[in-house]
Amino acid sequence: MSKKPLILITNDDGVTAPGIKALIDVMLTIGDVVVVAPDSPQSGMGHAITLNSVLHLDNLTQKKDNYKTYSCSGTPADCVKIAINEVLNRKPDLCVSGVNHGSNASINVIYSGTMSAAIEAGIEGIPAIGFSLLDYNWNANFEHSKPYIKQIAQQVLNNKLPEGIVLNVNIPNSDKKEIKGIKVCRQAKANWKEKFDKRKTPQGKDYYWLTGEFENLDKGKDTDEFALEKHYISVVPVKFDLTAHHFLQQLNTWNLND
Amino acid sequence: MSKKPLILITNDDGVTAPGIKALIDVMLTIGDVVVVAPDSPQSGMGHAITLNSVLHLDNLTQKKDNYKTYSCSGTPADCVKIAINEVLNRKPDLCVSGVNHGSNASINVIYSGTMSAAIEAGIEGIPAIGFSLLDYNWNANFEHSKPYIKQIAQQVLNNKLPEGIVLNVNIPNSDKKEIKGIKVCRQAKANWKEKFDKRKTPQGKDYYWLTGEFENLDKGKDTDEFALEKHYISVVPVKFDLTAHHFLQQLNTWNLND
Repeated sequence: MSKKPLILITNDDGVTAPGIKALIDVMLTIGDVVVVAPDSPQSGMGHAITLNSVLHLDNLTQKKDNYKTYSCSGTPADCVKIAINEVLNRKPDLCVSGVNHGSNASINVIYSGTMSAAIEAGIEGIPAIGFSLLDYNWNANFEHSKPYIKQIAQQVLNNKLPEGIVLNVNIPNSDKKEIKGIKVCRQAKANWKEKFDKRKTPQGKDYYWLTGEFENLDKGKDTDEFALEKHYISVVPVKFDLTAHHFLQQLNTWNLND
Repeated sequence: MSKKPLILITNDDGVTAPGIKALIDVMLTIGDVVVVAPDSPQSGMGHAITLNSVLHLDNLTQKKDNYKTYSCSGTPADCVKIAINEVLNRKPDLCVSGVNHGSNASINVIYSGTMSAAIEAGIEGIPAIGFSLLDYNWNANFEHSKPYIKQIAQQVLNNKLPEGIVLNVNIPNSDKKEIKGIKVCRQAKANWKEKFDKRKTPQGKDYYWLTGEFENLDKGKDTDEFALEKHYISVVPVKFDLTAHHFLQQLNTWNLND
């Protein structure tokens, strides 16, 4: 007799975002679901945690619901920590984060609150996946994504991920063009060319909005950006041992101890 | 005739922290210095960036100063972005972040605002180093660290870092015991066992403080934690391509496209 898997769901767009609702829909067909998500949008929060202020946790579950929902005043990484320590009775079998409204492919993984939640779960030894849809609209259509999200989640439950690895899944905007399939990829070497939009306050003081353009000079056909451009879903295995192991030997030849 | 290197300095403890003053002292002996640092403490900010609110930038330079100082209302990563785009006339030759008051060894690199600034500089193609002293005290003694900080910064300027790599330098608390030297290391596989300190507001509502204990089960003698325990300075080369390249082949054997 197999028990249903326990699935923790979080995100960075906040507990009311349509993206997390799509993820809940899919996960309810696989297992028992508990949602612990930020009470407000946390995009671009990276792997921030709350050290200098307190955290609030509210049970938002309604009578009609067949799963529990909590909102937390902290970051996505805080949500995973508090879920494991204060909400769940046992270690979840899977943690899924998202579906993010917008891309977390290539260098965006570094700034991503969605992925920081998945990485936090990975640090805690929980198989984890971050999902993102390349559509920034609040009313993005998540329907096409659902069968793929289910397939990837089930594969993670069946195959297990090695220790120290979580998955970064990005889904092309498929409203206009069909999704072709799923591709395993590496993170493209792309980045943002920032621009600061300089404005004046009503009192005449300068202030800035961060803006920018995404620039991908990595034309590798094994990258997430290439897969997404060709309308494939990209799956990048992500690790949180940041050591550049291939450079250790060369660094040892430097005169650090002179 | 060699021009002095241009050095950008930032941190996550804020522009007034003693740690950044120590770093400024050392860097002024090597090159021309510009400081752009957060106007308030940003510990645990990870690689957060400010997307949903505006940024303020203030010139704090005083007449007597032989370098320029700016404070920014954003995160450490924001400070690097705004420094490059709005403050500096040319790309700096080096970006140093810190000296952090407290450890950024092992898994702490993930949560570290200090290291996120160094990584942001690395993404922008600037050689970068994050420095941390294993002493959380505001009045920590940075004097013993200074010759080592200078040596490591000069080695980075001389040897150049490969694209995609920055250095994470942690310095043992040497007030009681001498620093033995510098060791090149890998990130230890250690993590935090969180605990939440649950309290009640004056109105009787629960709230939480995140606390925890650091647990290192990785006894490798090539780790940063081991080096620090033996009173060596640890230098870990850190990369921001998070792809788990060694797992790509195996992941391709999963039934993702069934």
